[in-house]
Amino acid sequence: MCRWLAYTGSPIAMEKLIYEPEHSLIDQSLHARYGDETVNGDGFGVGYYADYGVSPAVFKDTKPAWGDRNLRELARHVRSPLFMAHVRASSGTAIQQTNCHPFRYGTWIWMHNGVISEFSRLKRDLVMAIAPELYPSIEGSTDSEVMFFLALTLGLQEDPPGAVERMAGLVERTGWSHNVEHPVQMSLSTSNGERLWSFRYSTERHSRSLFHSTNMESLRKLHPEVFELLEISDEARVVVSEPLRDLPGLWLEVPESTYTVVKPGMFEMHPFTPKPPK
Amino acid sequence: MCRWLAYTGSPIAMEKLIYEPEHSLIDQSLHARYGDETVNGDGFGVGYYADYGVSPAVFKDTKPAWGDRNLRELARHVRSPLFMAHVRASSGTAIQQTNCHPFRYGTWIWMHNGVISEFSRLKRDLVMAIAPELYPSIEGSTDSEVMFFLALTLGLQEDPPGAVERMAGLVERTGWSHNVEHPVQMSLSTSNGERLWSFRYSTERHSRSLFHSTNMESLRKLHPEVFELLEISDEARVVVSEPLRDLPGLWLEVPESTYTVVKPGMFEMHPFTPKPPK
Amino acid sequence: MCRWLAYTGSPIAMEKLIYEPEHSLIDQSLHARYGDETVNGDGFGVGYYADYGVSPAVFKDTKPAWGDRNLRELARHVRSPLFMAHVRASSGTAIQQTNCHPFRYGTWIWMHNGVISEFSRLKRDLVMAIAPELYPSIEGSTDSEVMFFLALTLGLQEDPPGAVERMAGLVERTGWSHNVEHPVQMSLSTSNGERLWSFRYSTERHSRSLFHSTNMESLRKLHPEVFELLEISDEARVVVSEPLRDLPGLWLEVPESTYTVVKPGMFEMHPFTPKPPK
Amino acid sequence: MCRWLAYTGSPIAMEKLIYEPEHSLIDQSLHARYGDETVNGDGFGVGYYADYGVSPAVFKDTKPAWGDRNLRELARHVRSPLFMAHVRASSGTAIQQTNCHPFRYGTWIWMHNGVISEFSRLKRDLVMAIAPELYPSIEGSTDSEVMFFLALTLGLQEDPPGAVERMAGLVERTGWSHNVEHPVQMSLSTSNGERLWSFRYSTERHSRSLFHSTNMESLRKLHPEVFELLEISDEARVVVSEPLRDLPGLWLEVPESTYTVVKPGMFEMHPFTPKPPK
Repeated sequence: MCRWLAYTGSPIAMEKLIYEPEHSLIDQSLHARYGDETVNGDGFGVGYYADYGVSPAVFKDTKPAWGDRNLRELARHVRSPLFMAHVRASSGTAIQQTNCHPFRYGTWIWMHNGVISEFSRLKRDLVMAIAPELYPSIEGSTDSEVMFFLALTLGLQEDPPGAVERMAGLVERTGWSHNVEHPVQMSLSTSNGERLWSFRYSTERHSRSLFHSTNMESLRKLHPEVFELLEISDEARVVVSEPLRDLPGLWLEVPESTYTVVKPGMFEMHPFTPKPPK
Repeated sequence: MCRWLAYTGSPIAMEKLIYEPEHSLIDQSLHARYGDETVNGDGFGVGYYADYGVSPAVFKDTKPAWGDRNLRELARHVRSPLFMAHVRASSGTAIQQTNCHPFRYGTWIWMHNGVISEFSRLKRDLVMAIAPELYPSIEGSTDSEVMFFLALTLGLQEDPPGAVERMAGLVERTGWSHNVEHPVQMSLSTSNGERLWSFRYSTERHSRSLFHSTNMESLRKLHPEVFELLEISDEARVVVSEPLRDLPGLWLEVPESTYTVVKPGMFEMHPFTPKPPK
Repeated sequence: MCRWLAYTGSPIAMEKLIYEPEHSLIDQSLHARYGDETVNGDGFGVGYYADYGVSPAVFKDTKPAWGDRNLRELARHVRSPLFMAHVRASSGTAIQQTNCHPFRYGTWIWMHNGVISEFSRLKRDLVMAIAPELYPSIEGSTDSEVMFFLALTLGLQEDPPGAVERMAGLVERTGWSHNVEHPVQMSLSTSNGERLWSFRYSTERHSRSLFHSTNMESLRKLHPEVFELLEISDEARVVVSEPLRDLPGLWLEVPESTYTVVKPGMFEMHPFTPKPPK
Repeated sequence: MCRWLAYTGSPIAMEKLIYEPEHSLIDQSLHARYGDETVNGDGFGVGYYADYGVSPAVFKDTKPAWGDRNLRELARHVRSPLFMAHVRASSGTAIQQTNCHPFRYGTWIWMHNGVISEFSRLKRDLVMAIAPELYPSIEGSTDSEVMFFLALTLGLQEDPPGAVERMAGLVERTGWSHNVEHPVQMSLSTSNGERLWSFRYSTERHSRSLFHSTNMESLRKLHPEVFELLEISDEARVVVSEPLRDLPGLWLEVPESTYTVVKPGMFEMHPFTPKPPK
């Protein structure tokens, strides 16, 4: 089980979200509250767009996030209008840079908290379903990366929500054919540098937590004393696997089987339904 | 705050103590119970003697112990009659191999859980008190290593308990001269490959926990069902900063301001009183 | 391009071969002489049997071998009658522990210097040919590990030379079907803890170098002044990708398209011919 | 022996100098040409100012620069008007982040190629000469960092050339008092984000190489075909320990016992003479 956050809005220093909140992602790497695993010390990663629509930078390391000096530097010096950060708790696969999130392909980045149940039994069939021309780009050994390449195979770049629905449907169909009862458990986020899509779903309809921040304008009226909010633009949104601070009205839970789409000035929620490809 | 264990007795595979107990040192690296810091993920180390009286091997890494494959291999394949293992939670100094415990000098190894209060203010004076001929051997930046070199300066190789008493006295005197109220907080262990000395002390007489295992023979009568005990020789002793398993009668707390000495067939406890050098 | 050595004979401290010769494997990690790549700094590994027929220990790291303190300790303290050591120069795949040699499966270890040409184009077909029950054990992303799992699929544990011939034949057939002219370039070594098999082969019959040490007894007569030779038993053999020292009569080149088998008291050479499986 | 480069001019992507030239710093990490050590694989670092006069970011790792993906990302995405990059070959001190260059104190960064001869014998006296209030900021164990803190003690922030002259004089005096014949061997560079100072000096007047790029305007006339030069502003200057490419007229050697000062529109050279403090 991992923890992550994604941001889009006016450019801010990444440390504003990664380090500064009382229950920041760094704090969650040591003491997460939700879920079974409380320590997320098996590596981390950030992916950021220097500007909308440009190619993303990805910085990953296998060390725990809490003590990494390079992440501290980067988070202080990089201002970005759209970024992701992830802290990892390995569910058994190797602790190595190629298993750290976010994964990148072209201008797309992808990160995940969850699991494909009994992945080692399903892995070969799932990897075989990845487009042969994408196959050589797989570098690591996680279920999360396989989900990304399946989604790319199934049209992520043209129709992100549809591709993720097809991916989840394919994983479920494959799992059920191997007698895995609940194949999919996922809270994931992906971006092309223009928009941010985030998904909450699990086969058993008991999905890992996912939250989004509310409208900043109304929040500012509610909490005029919270200075940091002032720097953040009205249309900014944060999506997180676990709230970054306790502030009444700040966080709304994304419902079961739902995905969100965010871009400047837009926030949408839609139902999510796995649809296996033909 | 760190966690550690030390063993002496008939040679055993190190994994018997580092991995196998229900609340093993590996489990403590993720979820320690005593003290404030529950995660000890800032590196680890083991020091072991292949036989009594031979030069020790030291293996250290900055990664968390829980996911390190090399430690897993080593602990499985090395059998030793006298070894130490340590998991680190940095109190601020850099996460680097030279700051991992145990420290070694000649045939001596040393590990520590504790802190010299306001070390950065005291460090220069303390380092100046280290013998100039030992000074170039200091490699890291921790208070623990400075305590080791002070003890070496003050006679560790000839009179271990006396040298540690002088070291603690020197640190207290130095701290008080800088208006530090409680300079010393320590639970430490050291060995020359023949005996194992362990110390529990703090200036405020509220020291970090320290336990030793009881006599194996009586324990075997008490718990004939506990299979693993059978492999361990009668005179074996384990000293730990936190118990490795819950077994009535297994662990005895070392009292405040006390040190222990263990060698095959011998276990002693003595009062510990800091005595600053002249 | 990588460098490696394998030893079998009376138990010796691994440092005798890894560190002490004038052109030791450590020296080769900095300054190899043969081949294009002179620096082998992308990780290293050792695999050793504590005794004949017991399960091997594997120790690997992604750091350069020349500065690794843990390798220095291990090589000094481990005595083994059969071990392998490898220093890696990545040909593009990630620098991560799961890509370091030797690879292990059960009691078998395997290491390689060479390349499957245009591996990224062939990889999917080759991985598909690995037995489904072995597939989940693949952890890294190298051609060398795929060769190992293909050999295991094709009978390595029952007939090592035959399985490697079938593996090489399969890689060639797969490569040719993708218009790769010279698919295989390999000098590899594998062991089950009883014997050591080493192979020199390339499709273009211009294989990477491979040497074996001569009979120690005759060498002792030739160089009575070379003290280190005295510690090594008469039947000991070393197989290396590049000589460890310049000593007339010490090293013999393994011919093209040849494999060797070594166990105590036995040294054989045989022709090697790829034979694709039916 | 290490290799480094420093740049000041119009903001450029760091990769233009670190990766793209034919004999780039990355190439030098594998195959340096000047000096004894050809491999600089014991860590690396970059320090950069996002703009003139702002606080610098520092990114360091202990891995070889040639294979580090994070450095590749950073060099591509960071544009800076003033930056330094360094690849390290340890002369014996530990391979750890706190020993990687550049070192930073406040807005100052500092990097070095060279050595204080017999440093372990001189270290204690030199460290004692560092201002007690600076002492706790020393994190690593290198001679280079000690030189930095000595220079800070002796006025680096007010009079950089004078402070470095006093530092070199102090090291020489200390060395001679310990019968070290040639205490100082240095090519170093430091900046406060406004200017860049670089120094070439050795006690024996046989200093490590140091080069600076010539005036870009005249170079453009000389080589109109060299496209990359067009992106670089007229006043840009690069200072390097070893030339980055062979281009007639591009590199000028800094003479023995000389320092340079660069800022936009200014390039000066002055003689350097060690002057021990009173």
